Amino acid sequence: MEDIYQYIEDHKEMYLDWLMEICKQPSVAAQNRGIEETVNLVEQYLQRLSIAVENIPTSGNPIVYGELDSGKDRTLTFYNHYDVQPEDPIELWESPPFSPEIRDGKLFARGTADNKGTLLSRICAIHAYQQVYKELPINIKFIIEGEEEIGSPHLSEFTEKHPDKLTTDGCIWENGFKSTDGRLQVTLGCKGMLYVELHAKGANVDLHSAKAAIVTNPAWRLVWALSTLKNEQEEILIDGFYDRIQEMTMEEKELTESIDYKEREELEQLGLKSYLNNLTGFNLKEKLIFQPTCTICGMESGYTEQGAKTVLPSVAKAKIDFRLVSEQDPDEILQLLRKHLNKHGFEDIEIVRLKGQRAALTKLNDALVQKVVSSAEKFFEKKPQVMRSQAGTGPMYTLCQKFGIPAVGFGIGHAGSHNHAPNENIYIDDFIEGIKFAALVIHEF
Amino acid sequence: MEDIYQYIEDHKEMYLDWLMEICKQPSVAAQNRGIEETVNLVEQYLQRLSIAVENIPTSGNPIVYGELDSGKDRTLTFYNHYDVQPEDPIELWESPPFSPEIRDGKLFARGTADNKGTLLSRICAIHAYQQVYKELPINIKFIIEGEEEIGSPHLSEFTEKHPDKLTTDGCIWENGFKSTDGRLQVTLGCKGMLYVELHAKGANVDLHSAKAAIVTNPAWRLVWALSTLKNEQEEILIDGFYDRIQEMTMEEKELTESIDYKEREELEQLGLKSYLNNLTGFNLKEKLIFQPTCTICGMESGYTEQGAKTVLPSVAKAKIDFRLVSEQDPDEILQLLRKHLNKHGFEDIEIVRLKGQRAALTKLNDALVQKVVSSAEKFFEKKPQVMRSQAGTGPMYTLCQKFGIPAVGFGIGHAGSHNHAPNENIYIDDFIEGIKFAALVIHEF
Repeated sequence: MEDIYQYIEDHKEMYLDWLMEICKQPSVAAQNRGIEETVNLVEQYLQRLSIAVENIPTSGNPIVYGELDSGKDRTLTFYNHYDVQPEDPIELWESPPFSPEIRDGKLFARGTADNKGTLLSRICAIHAYQQVYKELPINIKFIIEGEEEIGSPHLSEFTEKHPDKLTTDGCIWENGFKSTDGRLQVTLGCKGMLYVELHAKGANVDLHSAKAAIVTNPAWRLVWALSTLKNEQEEILIDGFYDRIQEMTMEEKELTESIDYKEREELEQLGLKSYLNNLTGFNLKEKLIFQPTCTICGMESGYTEQGAKTVLPSVAKAKIDFRLVSEQDPDEILQLLRKHLNKHGFEDIEIVRLKGQRAALTKLNDALVQKVVSSAEKFFEKKPQVMRSQAGTGPMYTLCQKFGIPAVGFGIGHAGSHNHAPNENIYIDDFIEGIKFAALVIHEF
Repeated sequence: MEDIYQYIEDHKEMYLDWLMEICKQPSVAAQNRGIEETVNLVEQYLQRLSIAVENIPTSGNPIVYGELDSGKDRTLTFYNHYDVQPEDPIELWESPPFSPEIRDGKLFARGTADNKGTLLSRICAIHAYQQVYKELPINIKFIIEGEEEIGSPHLSEFTEKHPDKLTTDGCIWENGFKSTDGRLQVTLGCKGMLYVELHAKGANVDLHSAKAAIVTNPAWRLVWALSTLKNEQEEILIDGFYDRIQEMTMEEKELTESIDYKEREELEQLGLKSYLNNLTGFNLKEKLIFQPTCTICGMESGYTEQGAKTVLPSVAKAKIDFRLVSEQDPDEILQLLRKHLNKHGFEDIEIVRLKGQRAALTKLNDALVQKVVSSAEKFFEKKPQVMRSQAGTGPMYTLCQKFGIPAVGFGIGHAGSHNHAPNENIYIDDFIEGIKFAALVIHEF
């Protein structure tokens, strides 16, 4: 592998340029911005590897599918996505989100960590491998979708229409990062998700707030409805919400115990004194990885600009994500939510489902898991950290678990990468190292 | 008076042009937009009446003060304001808010009803009176402020520094409208107000919402805090909130009973099935005029654009107005609110006071009241409707009650004028009629 590592080292400026090129291109699925341009770019990258590229249309954004048949026994699939989260709130970015900028050894831009950086690390790894050895030791598939950040609503269209494109011996999942102690996280699962909007409506027009004495206020309706969903002890109050959650196994508890979680550093970085419910240690990590959530991601009603406007709003909206675990089913949770609102007298509040996804878990003793972990132990100075599941969500169930395919995630981010938030960034060294490690995994598999 | 009415009739196009001219000029106090330009315009109007104009600076927007000393015994003051509410939400306007447009006999623009139309009706009345009779029968004072829509925060600076400018025999209050049955509303009071923002803070940066499992969410904190302020039965739950409210007198009950309130029509217009708590009749009117409120005028947190963004917000804000009645004191209510939040464990939620104003009531048997009512009975086909108080708020206490000055309000709006909301409008006929009536009040006083 040394000659490949050397090749990567010698061409790191070029690979960094490739990454900066794609980070310049917005691709915000939530706002349908820049999708076509990004698809074209991704196709160009794959073509540099002489991979057979197909642009597979869906009812939403197309999936870029690539297949490199080296005539080998074994096939490894890379699942990635070319879409990114909205850059809002734009005013908190220190440099423009789609003008990649290098500061302090880090590359700042939307998508550097999630997920363009990790995608490119894999493309560059194959490129380097081909330059040095001409031929790969395995067959490769790329499934690169454009709607991961909005819940992959059309990925199952793809899986249903193209079962042949799914067959593989294992899937390397899209993303990952190094934990605060510098250990590569190797992740074996994702939380699921139900993402909804709640809409409350009042009069058909905003009114002078004097009328609030007698006319219903949708902002109050929404506040009261929301306040029934979760209490200040963070207990989600929807009947049946926790029913399908399984107890942790001993092995899961041990893995969780072994995670180095830099509480004090994180709290300091976030400007906080403590975590929710004063959680620490095992309980904190267990909550993060194994417990579901109910999160207000956004809410809006009435006048929100500067100063005092005395207005009675006509509409109030909230965006809520439920992170799901174990066997929780987003469709069932949606029904439970509707029942819950009705039970509390909020039949008037409309629920709009924006995305749904089941949680996924690859078995700890799977061969792919063993291979990735042993490669990481060989490559990195520090022992990798096996994570039973990430705290985040992805369509791992849709693409892998549903078909019995093992999936393992790792990537090039770090604990302070600010995924989904302003000033998203990666260390340039992590990117180059990530290219090398991806090449090693291909080699070992 | 007939010759004055005729003059007004002959020059109604000119007076309408005057009104459209000032409505073209934005003057949004909440956003500090167009103040200086509007002050200049108002001064020009007063100069057309040969009124001695003073631009009186305050720590906020200047007050335009005008005095026409006709050497008479009696003085009448007109209190008006040149500022307007923000035009937001702009997308619901059928024509641009600062491009006055005539449709169906109505003039649409921000400020037509509140308060530029009524201000102009008084200026035009004096103009017509002077053209026909040369001299006015009374002395006139104008106090035209530029911060009424943000709670008149600097009006007391003016009252403290210029007690001589306040002395008067009575004050005609800024605004009013015709009720749904076409009767002129003559209003003898205003509700008070406390307007605050509540700020909840979480981490110092927006985070990926996976972290919501362990990191505090200010949107939840705000929702929980708000839900303790008022229950679904519309009871405000702050200890001591109702303590300073006096019982209605028999006379007040009778006046309230006599109000024609077109419930069915209003509900239909607003697209609603019923009022809050299914109120109707006397109870509805009593709630609107005599009861305090606690209204969410706006709230915002996290991601509010299109689609699903999974973000844990770092900030959540709500704007709340409390309409106050009787002897409720905004400063005391602010203290009670702070105590209430602390008592419920929300010491972390910051309160920002944006405006405060006490309620005001002129005595029913005051001479000015009698004069305005008898003039209205003479002038209008329909009997005027005496309103003990408007449901809205103004600085009547600061300018009048505090100094024992009686104040009576009437104006040129109608029940569908949409004050503070999109598509604010007046009937052009009401404007012309309002000029005539203002001339009559001057004549009779």
